[in-house]
Amino acid sequence: MKIAYSARHALHDPQFFLVRGRPQRSAEQPERATRLMDAIRPLGVEIAAPEDFGPSPRAAIHTPAYLDFLETAHERWQALGDASAEVLPNMHPLPGQPVTYPEGIVGRAGYHMADTACPIGAGTWAAAVEAAHSACQAAQWVIDGERAAYALCRPPGHHAYADRAGGFCFLNNSAIAAQYLLPKYGRVAILDVDVHHGNGTQGIFWHRRDVLTVSLHGDPAGFYPFFVGYAHERGEGDGLGYNINVPLPHGTGDDGYLAALARTARQIKAFAPGAVVVALGLDAYEGDPLKALAITTPGFARIGAAIAELGLPTVFVQEGGYLSAELGQNLASVLTGFRRAV
Amino acid sequence: MKIAYSARHALHDPQFFLVRGRPQRSAEQPERATRLMDAIRPLGVEIAAPEDFGPSPRAAIHTPAYLDFLETAHERWQALGDASAEVLPNMHPLPGQPVTYPEGIVGRAGYHMADTACPIGAGTWAAAVEAAHSACQAAQWVIDGERAAYALCRPPGHHAYADRAGGFCFLNNSAIAAQYLLPKYGRVAILDVDVHHGNGTQGIFWHRRDVLTVSLHGDPAGFYPFFVGYAHERGEGDGLGYNINVPLPHGTGDDGYLAALARTARQIKAFAPGAVVVALGLDAYEGDPLKALAITTPGFARIGAAIAELGLPTVFVQEGGYLSAELGQNLASVLTGFRRAV
Repeated sequence: MKIAYSARHALHDPQFFLVRGRPQRSAEQPERATRLMDAIRPLGVEIAAPEDFGPSPRAAIHTPAYLDFLETAHERWQALGDASAEVLPNMHPLPGQPVTYPEGIVGRAGYHMADTACPIGAGTWAAAVEAAHSACQAAQWVIDGERAAYALCRPPGHHAYADRAGGFCFLNNSAIAAQYLLPKYGRVAILDVDVHHGNGTQGIFWHRRDVLTVSLHGDPAGFYPFFVGYAHERGEGDGLGYNINVPLPHGTGDDGYLAALARTARQIKAFAPGAVVVALGLDAYEGDPLKALAITTPGFARIGAAIAELGLPTVFVQEGGYLSAELGQNLASVLTGFRRAV
Repeated sequence: MKIAYSARHALHDPQFFLVRGRPQRSAEQPERATRLMDAIRPLGVEIAAPEDFGPSPRAAIHTPAYLDFLETAHERWQALGDASAEVLPNMHPLPGQPVTYPEGIVGRAGYHMADTACPIGAGTWAAAVEAAHSACQAAQWVIDGERAAYALCRPPGHHAYADRAGGFCFLNNSAIAAQYLLPKYGRVAILDVDVHHGNGTQGIFWHRRDVLTVSLHGDPAGFYPFFVGYAHERGEGDGLGYNINVPLPHGTGDDGYLAALARTARQIKAFAPGAVVVALGLDAYEGDPLKALAITTPGFARIGAAIAELGLPTVFVQEGGYLSAELGQNLASVLTGFRRAV
């Protein structure tokens, strides 16, 4: 399997993370990528840095104002003179209230950053752009005939909306990959197996029927992203019925998860997509620091096999999954399980 | 003039405040009340603690879910076991996206707290309830025949919506006072002279025409609350035309401010209210730590005189105004200017 990886991910090393009121170092650390790569190199994969796909793939998903914000925010923030090293929001527009797009960088940070878990440092934009290129590269390989490819995207993407960062995410790599695949495949499914609901992806394709968005995740009633990710959210307008949320009880293990995955696999087949993007979080792991579910390392191989059984050209895009001793092994498990079942 | 004051304000001593990404102690400190009281005691005012007006005045403005949250949040937060001393949100529902009311306290904090400037400590609820009682007490004195009364409310209230805290505010004392006055006066105006837009007050009365909401404030394009407070926001439905925002260029001094105030005074008179609530922030002061405008201490006396010239029963409710050497003197200046002009 071909692996898209850029060492420039390490330009993004977020420090701020507010957990139950306590500031601490972000869980989305460069070491994640090191562990993931170390575990898959022995699998005989072919690793390459992505080409530069230019600005159009990200511009097909995100708004011009948001992209301008992401690219310039750190410089504008530093120009405040007395600001922190990372751009951080401290208030946000409210649902149900008038919203004017503000002029200043502090207001724009609140507008474009959904939470405090997406600080923007000096290298965030460069790393996010490179992650999006990696997603496009894996998609391109699949377009060129590979059965599957994997993009090690850091920062991850599935919590990023068209115009908002959030939850460690800036550019929605999975959405960018799906959009990139569309001209060839006509219809594309995104299957999000990250333990957190793929809220940004849902938001991006909410009104569309050419991309089916499916997310299996820990029940958000007491878990990020809290306000969305419920089963009753099915899309709107043309997109009605083309968003599927499967919130799972916290503590769900391999068997319960695989059963839910089998049900969604039938829904994906009914959609008859030409390709699938897997938003591959590994944080459903029983030992993940941010866990809600209890998938085992062998369980990840079963997930990989279930994905293979969709029988579709497959682009794996790395999403979450945090520092446990088994992080890399869980990725290897997914990819190995997939390859064995193809 | 009668002054409603409860020493229980000091139960609320918020510590967290995120300014340009830097956590620091909140500017909304108990010392504010000390300085305000020290300055007005020599004026020959009559100071009394408020009676207990019960839960109905706050329930007339705020939602049951929000009041339950405020009352129980700190205890539920502490029950998490590894949480900070103060309840703090880290993400929020997004405009334009589905919103489900979450079960857990972390999600509810994000739902009910609009920003990071309203941390809830052990004594916040008790202090907020007492501040609302103080607002009712001043309103009651006016109903009973006083020309004017002042409530030293801490925490302040004008950034609090029906179901959301924000910007140092929890219960909207000015809104509660206005609602309390309505049965006697039929129509009530709220004149907000705090340097920040009275966004919560606007939101509460957005669809109503029995309470005219008027706010003069620093232009929000680069200033809290950033997303609202613009002149084009005029209310909706029955409330259309009954919300007036006057964003002022940063640096506006006494003369520019008084001219704008004179224009809004004509609009208030055209509304023909039976009484006025003054949301009395003192942070338009040229030396305020959070300033955007440049009102002088004598300028505050002119503001007080302009308010007196409305010729209405007047309830002053303390909003913002932060620690400068002149904080108390600025309050004395408003009240003295008012009394001289009556």
